[in-house]
Amino acid sequence: MRTIIVGGVAGGMSAATRLRRLDEQRHIMVLERGSYVSFANCGLPYHVGGVIEDRSALLLQTPKSLAARFALDVRVRHEVIAIDPATQTVTIRDLDAGMEFEASYDTLVLAGGSSAGVGPTAGILPTHTLRSVDDVDRVLEILGSVDGPARVTVIGAGYIGLEAVENLLARGALVTLVQRGPQILSPLDPEMVTPVERVLRDHGVDLRLNTTVTGARPGIAVLSDGTEVPTDLVIEASGVHPESGLARGAGLTIGPTGGISVDARQRTSDASIYAVGDGVEKIDALDHTPALITMAGLANRHGRAAADAIAGVLDAEAASALGTGIVGVLGLTIATVGWSEKRLRAAGRERTVIHTHPSSHAGYYPGAKQMAVKLLVDPADDRILGAQIVGEDGVDKRIDVIATAMTGGITASGLSRLELAYAPQYGSAKDPINLAGYVADNVRAGTTRTTQWHKLRARQESGDTLIDVRSATEFASGAIPGAINIPLDELRARHAELPDGPLIVHCQVGQRGHTASRLLTQLGHDVTNLDGGYQTWKAGTTSTSPACLTKETR
Amino acid sequence: MRTIIVGGVAGGMSAATRLRRLDEQRHIMVLERGSYVSFANCGLPYHVGGVIEDRSALLLQTPKSLAARFALDVRVRHEVIAIDPATQTVTIRDLDAGMEFEASYDTLVLAGGSSAGVGPTAGILPTHTLRSVDDVDRVLEILGSVDGPARVTVIGAGYIGLEAVENLLARGALVTLVQRGPQILSPLDPEMVTPVERVLRDHGVDLRLNTTVTGARPGIAVLSDGTEVPTDLVIEASGVHPESGLARGAGLTIGPTGGISVDARQRTSDASIYAVGDGVEKIDALDHTPALITMAGLANRHGRAAADAIAGVLDAEAASALGTGIVGVLGLTIATVGWSEKRLRAAGRERTVIHTHPSSHAGYYPGAKQMAVKLLVDPADDRILGAQIVGEDGVDKRIDVIATAMTGGITASGLSRLELAYAPQYGSAKDPINLAGYVADNVRAGTTRTTQWHKLRARQESGDTLIDVRSATEFASGAIPGAINIPLDELRARHAELPDGPLIVHCQVGQRGHTASRLLTQLGHDVTNLDGGYQTWKAGTTSTSPACLTKETR
Repeated sequence: MRTIIVGGVAGGMSAATRLRRLDEQRHIMVLERGSYVSFANCGLPYHVGGVIEDRSALLLQTPKSLAARFALDVRVRHEVIAIDPATQTVTIRDLDAGMEFEASYDTLVLAGGSSAGVGPTAGILPTHTLRSVDDVDRVLEILGSVDGPARVTVIGAGYIGLEAVENLLARGALVTLVQRGPQILSPLDPEMVTPVERVLRDHGVDLRLNTTVTGARPGIAVLSDGTEVPTDLVIEASGVHPESGLARGAGLTIGPTGGISVDARQRTSDASIYAVGDGVEKIDALDHTPALITMAGLANRHGRAAADAIAGVLDAEAASALGTGIVGVLGLTIATVGWSEKRLRAAGRERTVIHTHPSSHAGYYPGAKQMAVKLLVDPADDRILGAQIVGEDGVDKRIDVIATAMTGGITASGLSRLELAYAPQYGSAKDPINLAGYVADNVRAGTTRTTQWHKLRARQESGDTLIDVRSATEFASGAIPGAINIPLDELRARHAELPDGPLIVHCQVGQRGHTASRLLTQLGHDVTNLDGGYQTWKAGTTSTSPACLTKETR
Repeated sequence: MRTIIVGGVAGGMSAATRLRRLDEQRHIMVLERGSYVSFANCGLPYHVGGVIEDRSALLLQTPKSLAARFALDVRVRHEVIAIDPATQTVTIRDLDAGMEFEASYDTLVLAGGSSAGVGPTAGILPTHTLRSVDDVDRVLEILGSVDGPARVTVIGAGYIGLEAVENLLARGALVTLVQRGPQILSPLDPEMVTPVERVLRDHGVDLRLNTTVTGARPGIAVLSDGTEVPTDLVIEASGVHPESGLARGAGLTIGPTGGISVDARQRTSDASIYAVGDGVEKIDALDHTPALITMAGLANRHGRAAADAIAGVLDAEAASALGTGIVGVLGLTIATVGWSEKRLRAAGRERTVIHTHPSSHAGYYPGAKQMAVKLLVDPADDRILGAQIVGEDGVDKRIDVIATAMTGGITASGLSRLELAYAPQYGSAKDPINLAGYVADNVRAGTTRTTQWHKLRARQESGDTLIDVRSATEFASGAIPGAINIPLDELRARHAELPDGPLIVHCQVGQRGHTASRLLTQLGHDVTNLDGGYQTWKAGTTSTSPACLTKETR
């Protein structure tokens, strides 16, 4: 029996090693077009920045080590150029020898990943992605060959684009970051990325939103607004496309997203051919439709599942994909899971929106950092639909807990009852997760009613009164136009001053506002609390693309 | 309507503020025996060490601030000395005025917490707990009054005892740590605390296990083995007892654990009296029996639930308690959730035991730290029964994920499918949690069979052969007696050298051992893999109390 695996990084190599552990007798051939297998692709940007100093740290395995340990027949610089499903044969090109040959398989695993598009600068300016060790070698070579700071134009402000920016800055480069859309990190909502955009600009990044690179001349990248940007190097990080050419050529079913379509055991439309990794469609955990989610963890998991199915020894269990993502940039960590508000809105799904600004650990213990948390909840059944967290510390922990809660079917209110580890250097007796759950519980039960930042103006314009319950000092240092300041601790005594008609209360982050709204509600007023308080309002109204959330209310 | 709340810290104050938000009209009186309410009790040890420099940071609220914001009638230095349920009256002693008076209630909330026992040194040596601001003030006074390093005897090596040790060391004290049992941190298993005991000794702590303090003379603590320890100060941290005296006096039902018995809404056997916090029995999530679990998070949650029940506006939902705990000491973080192996064993419960030693984040990214993970699984249904993690980084995140998985009913194998946030500075494409799930899945499916460290000797004595598949260098730097070294990469070629009969393979942490066991199993051998590898074996066999796990196999 022979299994051929096309692609020797995450998903392909997980499939190969798992299959060997399950089947000692099988001939397992791994064909990799590039020069390296099993390298740390998620570490590549950090080698550019020198954080990972030693290039060899990126090379986790070699064909030789894989032969010794797993008896794998690994060929680098070997590209599969065609598949003939009828004869179960692949045509292979040996890129160094320049010759082609055929090999037959009993089962084939496609793990070719995805590829980045290359824009109009290619051929005019040095233009590279950060997807292989060779890419990084060339980028470092160019950075090293420039006198003075290199001028780099990064196209795409997604996860990899931001990692590229951070590492280019670490090398002293001058960076222009060009983003097609109205905000960076499009999986998140606009008010959540405001601090990230600010930190980029604070570090000298020339951030160009709603912009594309439309052309180039030697030494110059030309932007869609006509700007000419002096450029020594272009980094393409503007999104990836599933590598589905081989599969198409073989007549395999390609899904609506352009990714290879597979069943719950990673099998394609041809019973002898499996596919895993970034080239393959996943099933979205929220709406169970096909989705492209390109995460290394999923590639590994599905590689293993394919091996299980091929070996036939175990029940591979399918699991849909949440799309948990994280990126660190310039001291901030940004993480997301599930769907964003704008995506839910675009799909016409009802959602309760909750913003909080808790501390990473107990406020009385040194070093606590505030984070911004956004939780999206299905009002019908209290199900968690998504979350976004931005902060300096403790972000990865909280997104992992929410991802786990979503997988376990824990409701938003149920987050309040999670027993999370508490000592003051790690969290709070009411952890940020518990707090979000308490807010969700209050919203669900009707104990609190909230107004979102992007609906505030319309409500003020229709005559509602906005009460700022922060201290006079806080009010003086920056307030929402039209707000009346009555500090929370004076509200009980002064509530007679309040006008009739609907009130909106707000504080800095929403907590005192909640107490105020409870007090005033019981005193007979019609009150809502500004969700997330002044901080969320400020982030939202200074964000670069509020329109994606405000349109429906204007 | 008047609600009286006895105890003004975590649970009591959560009840009071929540109740006010639900009911503006009620008279809410909070009676606190100590001098402070709503202080950061979990921060007290860190003020001793100077980590929390500013004493006022510990004082989160005052009676005045609580009156202003929540219209609470808060009385400090007021002790409730009796309850008359028939007349719904409490007798209160004003400790400063030295007078007593009565107050009636419609509902009463007991939130008196727990108290630490004081041993035979009291009255002879300065002896204090670390449970109130007054305690800490006195401890700091004593430390400051001693010429040269203070000599402190800490009784009890649980969470608070270890926090006390760390902070006393930070003040330059010479510390003797006296622990009644055979290991520190008794909620964990012995092999997991070996590194913690080592780090304590490395920092100069005189750790005395299986020892108690039996007496004292001026300047001397006398230990059960006759040792006389020069002592300027004794810190009592040897466990706490629920404060149930008031409840007993009122004829309320006390549970088998000695804690006040409450229903799912925190109501005691008297319909007008609720109880929350450390004085109250919880329901253990694993076996649904009453348990004493003294965690601030539970106190807060149950305080809120009691307020909900009293206000009658919401359905308070009961949730059983997992007992998630964490402590940081001298650079290590130790965390646990659910039951330990020794507890499961003592209860006669079947369990699959898994030890792993993953990295806190991707090994190729700088700063990754190895952690030790132990997972306990029900072999019948793959349910997670407990977990313990010890390491320098990322421990709190992983225990929170497991606690959440347990709450959500995610199985041990299911941990492999969790989609956790991955970028190389935060985790790995196969996160430690996923890895533990993969091992659990292999054990469950029979793909791997393991031997526990404490059964190895018996198996070797009965003639099984132990193969060390690590490199020759690793073998030379320390090996298990009787092991034969055949490095994994040579095993395929050399397996003919192996004897007939059962084999046990092992590597450093278990991963290469798994590959070796798969290889040899397919070549026809009877193989098990030493769970957790050399590291777990080493930790276990050098632990101070292996007997609690080895007895059954000898």
